[in-house]
Amino acid sequence: MTRQELIQQIREKQSFLCVGLDTDINKIPACVKKLVDDKCEDEDDRLSMYIYAFNKLIIDATAPYCVAYKPNLAFYECYGIEGLFAYHKTVGYLKQKYPHHFIIADAKRGDIGNTSKMYAKTFFEGDAQVDALTVAPYMGEDSVTPFLGYEGKWAILLALTSNKGSHDFQLTEDRQGERLFEKVLKTSQQWGSDENMMYVVGATQGRMFEDIRKVVPTHFLLVPGVGAQGGSLQEVCQYGMTTDCGLLVNSSRGIIYASAGEDFAEVAAQKARELQQEMKIELKKKEFL
Amino acid sequence: MTRQELIQQIREKQSFLCVGLDTDINKIPACVKKLVDDKCEDEDDRLSMYIYAFNKLIIDATAPYCVAYKPNLAFYECYGIEGLFAYHKTVGYLKQKYPHHFIIADAKRGDIGNTSKMYAKTFFEGDAQVDALTVAPYMGEDSVTPFLGYEGKWAILLALTSNKGSHDFQLTEDRQGERLFEKVLKTSQQWGSDENMMYVVGATQGRMFEDIRKVVPTHFLLVPGVGAQGGSLQEVCQYGMTTDCGLLVNSSRGIIYASAGEDFAEVAAQKARELQQEMKIELKKKEFL
Repeated sequence: MTRQELIQQIREKQSFLCVGLDTDINKIPACVKKLVDDKCEDEDDRLSMYIYAFNKLIIDATAPYCVAYKPNLAFYECYGIEGLFAYHKTVGYLKQKYPHHFIIADAKRGDIGNTSKMYAKTFFEGDAQVDALTVAPYMGEDSVTPFLGYEGKWAILLALTSNKGSHDFQLTEDRQGERLFEKVLKTSQQWGSDENMMYVVGATQGRMFEDIRKVVPTHFLLVPGVGAQGGSLQEVCQYGMTTDCGLLVNSSRGIIYASAGEDFAEVAAQKARELQQEMKIELKKKEFL
Repeated sequence: MTRQELIQQIREKQSFLCVGLDTDINKIPACVKKLVDDKCEDEDDRLSMYIYAFNKLIIDATAPYCVAYKPNLAFYECYGIEGLFAYHKTVGYLKQKYPHHFIIADAKRGDIGNTSKMYAKTFFEGDAQVDALTVAPYMGEDSVTPFLGYEGKWAILLALTSNKGSHDFQLTEDRQGERLFEKVLKTSQQWGSDENMMYVVGATQGRMFEDIRKVVPTHFLLVPGVGAQGGSLQEVCQYGMTTDCGLLVNSSRGIIYASAGEDFAEVAAQKARELQQEMKIELKKKEFL
């Protein structure tokens, strides 16, 4: 999906919400498992069917309120082949039924050039291809550029993450007073553009968005950490929103596990809609709508 | 595998060679493919059978000369479920037939705490569990510690990698003149010990091993970049070897693709043996043997 198409989707949905599909088998409501058990006789792929059934119901419930979905690969990989199967089926479902939703594989990849090329192939080619992949910048240019050679595909580089450990290295100042995340933002400008690179900036980083916008005034930012991690949507928008919106704000646990009862999909829709309504207000403030 | 067991293996095999299983379907010799085609009627899993058959033959040929194997996940993931199947079968084969070889999943993972926990589960629990996982340090403490809670399992943190892009961020000096890779080495000392953490240091970094040994005098280093990437084994040993050896030196392409003919396994064994012989000399120099 190109930048213009993404902006168009944000305008149509009046939302820049990304729903994180961190699907944990232990948190899938009993009613979903029963639904699968009743339908499915084959014991073999029961686990992947639980995950896929849950994702499908969450997606159908939240699709009107969001522009993007972000499956977190760790939650699929930990179930081995069955988990990967559920991931592929989820991506397939999204591509078929919601072709205008942006899909982000949250996998934090990055390796030497010839290996990153293989990861690019994994995520950007074939049936299960997605629009964007999160990438760890530690290994530098040749670990990132293989992801930038695909029309309409995006590398989303970690810049300033939402977790406590983000302080360990990302805030380290060099001799000129430039912090590591700023160096990542600056240096990577030479590798790609705001048409094929975004950055991860945690919602928990508050006013740091001001500093970030000084370096990357137009790039889209993928912002996790609203909800369970405690970040404020208003603050993110105040300091991070551009005239093109420039934000994809992710919520995972706050939406998909908002209820463990039979009303889980309904409550997920409601939580997504609440965020969408807040986002609409922010978009109007910036006169984007 | 514990540190003592690993050191024991190095002593027995007079080798600290790690063979990288970067298995590229396009480089698998025709004779292996024919072997699979002749045996296997089912077209469905042909691709995973090619990869697995090749790995098996390479492993059997090189096992006497190495102490570790390092499948590079990118090369399996890019074939989706079939690739993951081949990876699982390879790990299963190693664990069953060569239980004293150390297995490193080269996957460069790392994410916020609750996600890293899932990656730890993926690689350190269940049937396909391995001894060690490579981990990217950019996200800091809570992205790494979930990998350190397993008896006899290891996180191998990226410190100073072998690629050109390693210069982009890893060498950045802070106000006190400490480079980022040194900060990673130092800071991570508070998270784990030389019993559950190793570091990736590229063979191409030459005398930097001196500086690294000042910070981590006893930790094992996983050293890629000998062979195809041009690093020197002698230099690595001169500046990086400890009295406990303290090194696992990896070669991938230089061994597994040394010949594309019918003699590929034989030539792989020969290349592995050549490296083992050089390693034996280095181990004797340090009076480890």
